[in-house]
Amino acid sequence: MQDSFEVSASTGTYAVTVGDQLLADVVREHPNAVYIVDTILEDRLPPEAKRRIRIDALEANKSLEYAPHLISELRKAGADRSTHLVAIGGGIIQDVVTFAASIFMRGLPWTYMPTTLLSMVDSCIGGKSSINAAGYKNLVGNFYPPKKVLVDVSFISTLDAEMIAGGLFEAAKICYASNYQAFLDYLACSPGLKMTDEQAVNVIRHSLLTKKWFIEIDEFDQKERLLLNFGHTFGHALEAATDFGISHGVGVGLGMLVAAQYAKRETELTDAGKDHVAHLIEHVKDMIGPRAERVLQSPAHVDLDLAMEKFEFDKKHKSDSYRIVIPNREGALALVSVSKTPETRRKILGAFSAAFDEISWPYQIPQVVTPA
Amino acid sequence: MQDSFEVSASTGTYAVTVGDQLLADVVREHPNAVYIVDTILEDRLPPEAKRRIRIDALEANKSLEYAPHLISELRKAGADRSTHLVAIGGGIIQDVVTFAASIFMRGLPWTYMPTTLLSMVDSCIGGKSSINAAGYKNLVGNFYPPKKVLVDVSFISTLDAEMIAGGLFEAAKICYASNYQAFLDYLACSPGLKMTDEQAVNVIRHSLLTKKWFIEIDEFDQKERLLLNFGHTFGHALEAATDFGISHGVGVGLGMLVAAQYAKRETELTDAGKDHVAHLIEHVKDMIGPRAERVLQSPAHVDLDLAMEKFEFDKKHKSDSYRIVIPNREGALALVSVSKTPETRRKILGAFSAAFDEISWPYQIPQVVTPA
Ligand SMILES: NC(=O)c1ccc[n+]([C@@H]2O[C@H](COP(=O)([O-])OP(=O)(O)OC[C@H]3O[C@@H](n4cnc5c(N)ncnc54)[C@H](O)[C@@H]3O)[C@@H](O)[C@H]2O)c1
Ligand SMILES: NC(=O)c1ccc[n+]([C@@H]2O[C@H](COP(=O)([O-])OP(=O)(O)OC[C@H]3O[C@@H](n4cnc5c(N)ncnc54)[C@H](O)[C@@H]3O)[C@@H](O)[C@H]2O)c1
Ligand SMILES: [Zn+2]
Ligand SMILES: [Zn+2]
Repeated sequence: MQDSFEVSASTGTYAVTVGDQLLADVVREHPNAVYIVDTILEDRLPPEAKRRIRIDALEANKSLEYAPHLISELRKAGADRSTHLVAIGGGIIQDVVTFAASIFMRGLPWTYMPTTLLSMVDSCIGGKSSINAAGYKNLVGNFYPPKKVLVDVSFISTLDAEMIAGGLFEAAKICYASNYQAFLDYLACSPGLKMTDEQAVNVIRHSLLTKKWFIEIDEFDQKERLLLNFGHTFGHALEAATDFGISHGVGVGLGMLVAAQYAKRETELTDAGKDHVAHLIEHVKDMIGPRAERVLQSPAHVDLDLAMEKFEFDKKHKSDSYRIVIPNREGALALVSVSKTPETRRKILGAFSAAFDEISWPYQIPQVVTPA
Repeated sequence: MQDSFEVSASTGTYAVTVGDQLLADVVREHPNAVYIVDTILEDRLPPEAKRRIRIDALEANKSLEYAPHLISELRKAGADRSTHLVAIGGGIIQDVVTFAASIFMRGLPWTYMPTTLLSMVDSCIGGKSSINAAGYKNLVGNFYPPKKVLVDVSFISTLDAEMIAGGLFEAAKICYASNYQAFLDYLACSPGLKMTDEQAVNVIRHSLLTKKWFIEIDEFDQKERLLLNFGHTFGHALEAATDFGISHGVGVGLGMLVAAQYAKRETELTDAGKDHVAHLIEHVKDMIGPRAERVLQSPAHVDLDLAMEKFEFDKKHKSDSYRIVIPNREGALALVSVSKTPETRRKILGAFSAAFDEISWPYQIPQVVTPA
């Protein structure tokens, strides 16, 4: 069970393979590579992979401040211009290795094996890194795709339900951002908390092939690719307001709900548009709604006043307007600018609370909305 | 007095202008840019350039460890995705800004104004950064050319003789690496410690147009561009062995002398080859030879045993051979591999001492050459 396709980037084309049991092959092909692996996954590495660097998958390590440490580890491991790197882990390991590989002796070739569903369905292609710096999340980053991406679904078995849901939200986001049919095709792959390896391969392949269109047409995030921020501006605000008690993937799911509520209340959706948006809402509710409470054992406490404050300071906004991705008319996504007024702020806050009401997730709203 | 040409890179084409009094124009064109300026040059900035970040041109600041500080300064200056940066300074400022501009929000457009002769004739085009990390000099780096390079020769007036000589050595290196005629054309521009603005413009233009060929044919330093390391492997060893008492540019001049001595003694030069090499040696001696002692008030004390040790650990070597650029047969440069044997080490040490003898620069040689 294995399937491959290619992604073209300005630095060349790279191959993506989705299958199972791919790890042993990599080690056979690259016995002398330096393996950079999420600490908790180190025991999956066959003993033949001798040169190893372990990284704890912590936000603190995904930082410009941490980079010198990894560079020094690479140097200690004897890496030189001709060394191949193999990164094994989720988005944090990917970000850190994308960055380090791009700068070590001005660039080393590397292979990436994503191990979280989020990184399998989404971040593993596109070549982006997002790195924390000077206390700001994801303030810096770059583009440096691996030579090869190997998605081995055997890693999924140890992920918890919340991480599966979070990954599926990113896949749903990509497919919905593409077009409604792509979203229907995604649902036809049976995305869910319990998937067979084959279902997982199908979901991942469909999500990545859909994302491929976005990154090939807009490698450097100038236009089409911006739609893939769907759910993210609201989601990041919720992540930040809960001190990351809400994980990234769940934040994206919630963020899509907020965007959907905003669209339902503040834009003119056609009947088809309402229908598409409702369908997306149902999929998210299937995962973290009241019917699925086991996914989130104890949902983080959310203070919407703080979430609005975090939303306000998102770096994607302009000085006079908020920039958000929302479903429009027929339900397709659009990147819109909304002027920064007390009125707009009330509407956005309203969408936040409506989204939480929708899934019966308790939250705290401010008594008084302070006009800025 | 102004002349422009273009350099093409994978990220687009950028324009290079060589002239004088260009600073006022930049500030007029980019009143809202963030100006990142060598501290000692800040007073040249017109008051209209309001957003400023000063950087001391120190090796310690040209480091991965320093990068978060600059990123935080950019953030404090209010930089966002649409901000233009203008860097004003020598190679250190260029390295630091190339790196920071490439990663801040995944890349900001920037303009570079080189202010040392070295950066004017050489490093300002090519897009490379070299950054110190984890205590290793230039261990990391990347490629991120500015949108525009503006070479304003008015900055030369405050450089001392050593800095002028160092810049000219890089220009001589580029032209000699291209072909003997390019070297003769360079000499015809009257390179010297005292140049009129017009002579300086001619030297710089000729050097940059010659370098343009190398960087366009080999943007990522795979083949032709490697010849521009001429003088650098030996030079770096001398810089390091004197704890940077020998500056980079002077190190390159000395390094070319060492390479020339090695070629004279260990390779089969034709009569023309001997002639070309001798001509290059004369030019270097004109600048730092006994006839020009005022350039170097008190030459650094050199321990050749230490220089050999530093040479040994250069990261460009392979595990079993040294890689050096030397004049060959007709005098043209070649990148050659020489196997690592005690015999080779004795020859290289011999070339080092012959070079220092040539310019009557005192040095210390080990009593016993330790075979490794
Ligand atoms: N650069 C991009 O394009 C991009 C896109 C999305 C997210 N990100 C970043 O990625 C990070 C989130 O990444 P993520 O959620 O993929 O994972 P992660 O790397 O943050 O890991 C999350 C947790 O899962 C563990 N883990 C990883 N694989 C596992 C496995 N197979 N079984 C059990 N546990 C496993 C990790 O140790 C960690 O505790 C964030 O920092 C986010 O900003 C980057
Ligand atoms: N990335 C590349 O392609 C590349 C190429 C060559 C060198 N470099 C790096 O550049 C650095 C050396 O650069 P450099 O020699 O151009 O300069 P520099 O930035 O190191 O500055 C040298 C000194 O000159 C001063 N200075 C700068 N402009 C001046 C002016 N107009 N008048 C008086 N003083 C001035 C500085 O303050 C500093 O004290 C090294 O770190 C080297 O590794 C990089
Ligand atoms: Zn995401
Ligand atoms: Zn140099």
